[in-house]
Amino acid sequence: MSIEHEQQDKTTEVNLERLPSDIERIHGLAERLLPFHAEISSDLPLEDEQAKADIVELMSVLHELHPADVATVLESLPQKERMLVWHLAAPEEDGEVLLEVSDAVRETLIETMDKEELLAAVEDLDADELAELADDLPNQVVYEALKTRDEEERAQVQAAMSYEDSQVGALMDFELVSIRADVTCEVVLRYLRRFDSLPDHTDKIFVVDDNEILQGVLPIRKLLVADPDELVENVMATEVVRFRPEDDAEEAAQAFERYDLVTAPVVDETQKLIGRITIDEMVDVIREETEADMLNMAGLQEEEDLFAPVLDSVKNRWMWLAINLCTAFLASRVIGAFEGSIAKIVALAALMPIVAGIGGNSGNQTITMIVRAMAMGQLSGGQAGRLLKKEVGVALVNGVLWGSVMGMVSWLLYDSPGIGLVMVAAMTLNLLLAATVGVLIPITMEKAGRDPALGSSVLITAVTDSGGFLIFLGLATIFLL
Amino acid sequence: MSIEHEQQDKTTEVNLERLPSDIERIHGLAERLLPFHAEISSDLPLEDEQAKADIVELMSVLHELHPADVATVLESLPQKERMLVWHLAAPEEDGEVLLEVSDAVRETLIETMDKEELLAAVEDLDADELAELADDLPNQVVYEALKTRDEEERAQVQAAMSYEDSQVGALMDFELVSIRADVTCEVVLRYLRRFDSLPDHTDKIFVVDDNEILQGVLPIRKLLVADPDELVENVMATEVVRFRPEDDAEEAAQAFERYDLVTAPVVDETQKLIGRITIDEMVDVIREETEADMLNMAGLQEEEDLFAPVLDSVKNRWMWLAINLCTAFLASRVIGAFEGSIAKIVALAALMPIVAGIGGNSGNQTITMIVRAMAMGQLSGGQAGRLLKKEVGVALVNGVLWGSVMGMVSWLLYDSPGIGLVMVAAMTLNLLLAATVGVLIPITMEKAGRDPALGSSVLITAVTDSGGFLIFLGLATIFLL
Repeated sequence: MSIEHEQQDKTTEVNLERLPSDIERIHGLAERLLPFHAEISSDLPLEDEQAKADIVELMSVLHELHPADVATVLESLPQKERMLVWHLAAPEEDGEVLLEVSDAVRETLIETMDKEELLAAVEDLDADELAELADDLPNQVVYEALKTRDEEERAQVQAAMSYEDSQVGALMDFELVSIRADVTCEVVLRYLRRFDSLPDHTDKIFVVDDNEILQGVLPIRKLLVADPDELVENVMATEVVRFRPEDDAEEAAQAFERYDLVTAPVVDETQKLIGRITIDEMVDVIREETEADMLNMAGLQEEEDLFAPVLDSVKNRWMWLAINLCTAFLASRVIGAFEGSIAKIVALAALMPIVAGIGGNSGNQTITMIVRAMAMGQLSGGQAGRLLKKEVGVALVNGVLWGSVMGMVSWLLYDSPGIGLVMVAAMTLNLLLAATVGVLIPITMEKAGRDPALGSSVLITAVTDSGGFLIFLGLATIFLL
Repeated sequence: MSIEHEQQDKTTEVNLERLPSDIERIHGLAERLLPFHAEISSDLPLEDEQAKADIVELMSVLHELHPADVATVLESLPQKERMLVWHLAAPEEDGEVLLEVSDAVRETLIETMDKEELLAAVEDLDADELAELADDLPNQVVYEALKTRDEEERAQVQAAMSYEDSQVGALMDFELVSIRADVTCEVVLRYLRRFDSLPDHTDKIFVVDDNEILQGVLPIRKLLVADPDELVENVMATEVVRFRPEDDAEEAAQAFERYDLVTAPVVDETQKLIGRITIDEMVDVIREETEADMLNMAGLQEEEDLFAPVLDSVKNRWMWLAINLCTAFLASRVIGAFEGSIAKIVALAALMPIVAGIGGNSGNQTITMIVRAMAMGQLSGGQAGRLLKKEVGVALVNGVLWGSVMGMVSWLLYDSPGIGLVMVAAMTLNLLLAATVGVLIPITMEKAGRDPALGSSVLITAVTDSGGFLIFLGLATIFLL
């Protein structure tokens, strides 16, 4: 993988795999410059010749990087080094970099910038990009940045800011090319030539009437092969996937995936064209959606700055730890209720985590498969019964299979066929419990209008832990004492 | 969200949100037609008037759907209904649908088709699409399908088949437009007009010399605004992200994400242009990559057909259940070693799962954050020490905080300050263990060249379970007996 990088007439080849080594180099330089942190951040002159050379080298490496790569470098640096590098980064790219970093890191970067720096950074951003940053900027900066824009752009920023992050409206941009249906392709080509440049990702031109009502789209692919004298209305596609600003961004991303879109128009309730969304925003939505599920399942509330101060990390993680402690305490009380049985047969204490563990593992398998199918729109309510039947079947097979293995081991270990039989029965029953609850939790959550991914892993583990202890110790109390 | 669907002159609007209700409708029809399964699949005439009407309705709904939507419908149907619907689907779209469904479902569909049906389905596919299906098709079908292609296409199919699924070479396509650098934009536009249609996602034209060596790319966006008399070499970009067929598909997808690409050229070691990759394939890679991590963490080996036969599901899940049983058995033996202590203080049995549980939860938080940072290229080897220091800090705060809470509760519950103190100490130590191992496991795996996501969750839980029991029961044995 490689990028060719044009500099004047020379064409130097930059290897994409060089990024990790560039990061290492920046890390080394930043660490060596750390003692001069105070001077650098106040732009004071440096005495040290080596440090001066280091700064020149660091700046030249940084200036060669794409804003997305600068963002990666900043994410990977501890906070002090991050501030130092941020201070030396190309200021004209500051706005782009702020758009690329995660929310957590963006906050730390914005904190170090004064009003003038922030205004300079957002100066060249499009309306939709300014809207994206606005939540994290001081109000005064947003106010002054808006003052320099014309009325149309101000309205666009305010429109984009009025939608939730999870809605199409917050992700749309306003740079688009629109034409009328009753002109020829030749006229369109001449019209396009008057632009200095076309918006990114332009794969289609939007066809509207005099009231800006969307009539169709003219794919560039069709425009280029069309007869120049043909009218747009005879070439354009009227089969257009279109979105409303209040549509859910994840559903829009799925439509992009499904229909292989690059851009799509956004219209209001009267079908008036108000913006467009592009595949690069949708790719971010897909990445964030699947990552959010993964982070939630692991008990992190949100993406965390790798080098966040300890207390910030504690704050990000405390809630799930607290929930986990509550469910663990519940399981502990179930065991407490059987202390009499354990006192008589201590082996029960050693075997009970096996029963609880396999239930949790198996339940998580079921729930993950169902959550995934729901996210892809493959599961409708009517199938719950059939799914349950299948999962119960799987649980029965696994219960008898692994239950027998563990039953034999326990029998041999404790020289008691009774313990072996209780083990088989408890493992099978807990697997059946896991299968049932694993199907019912996500389906119930979906029906209640909640995200089925959120917390379902914690919930099922709570059920299979407490349930597993109850089933195993209960059976043992009845049959072995 | 809505699609406009053109039929002759009429423009009917199809709402994207209608897909779920279409699925419901197909489910209902398929269920009603199930008794006639035998007749339908052998194309025998039906007596039943209602069934005939149902078939007509089912076919008309199916024919209106995009192949990607037909794929979703098939994924969501139990196996018998799926076969029935598949038999009635538009045969000219069969190939497209096979490309869209998951591997597991694709197998079930191909099994029901005879050689002629399969040959008809793959007839209209491009070389790269045929290569994608080839692994799942009977050898005889691949052989005959290749016979009908010309030599160039045969070579393309064989080239694409020679790469691993995880390599760029397996995902590239061969439909591309290339031009020379020494012609004018006007000539390019005239040349393009000779095509019936341009390949999907054409956002740039590849510029090559007489030996097909890649010189640069001409973005359509630039071509459209360029002076027609300008030479291509003065307009083209030479800063081109390019890939080799043996490059890793996940890294390519990250480059697409990072640099907002729509298409990119694939070149061999001499820089000769051999194909291109497109954003739609990369979106699938991103989706699959994050989903694979999620499925692996939950203990599923691969994407599973929702309605797979019970034994197929058992096969897909057995390995992780077996690993889980082994680690649970290990933890059980740790407890077994302290049976003497538990016999004397039964409360230990009830409290020990709390210590193990919080360690597992906290360790999974750490490991997920690090695995994510590694996947995004934000973590280089040199930072392990600093990360460890931070995670240990977080563990100390959490240990003292939640340990004290649980210590107090245990003290009150069992009226023993000793148990409370052991609880505080054990929880803190297990959290420190979780933090240390949570940092070291993914970093060690990465250094060893393994996927840090795979199995790391199981591994850390094994350590915090056995470790937690050992620490808690060990401390209790030393200080309380």
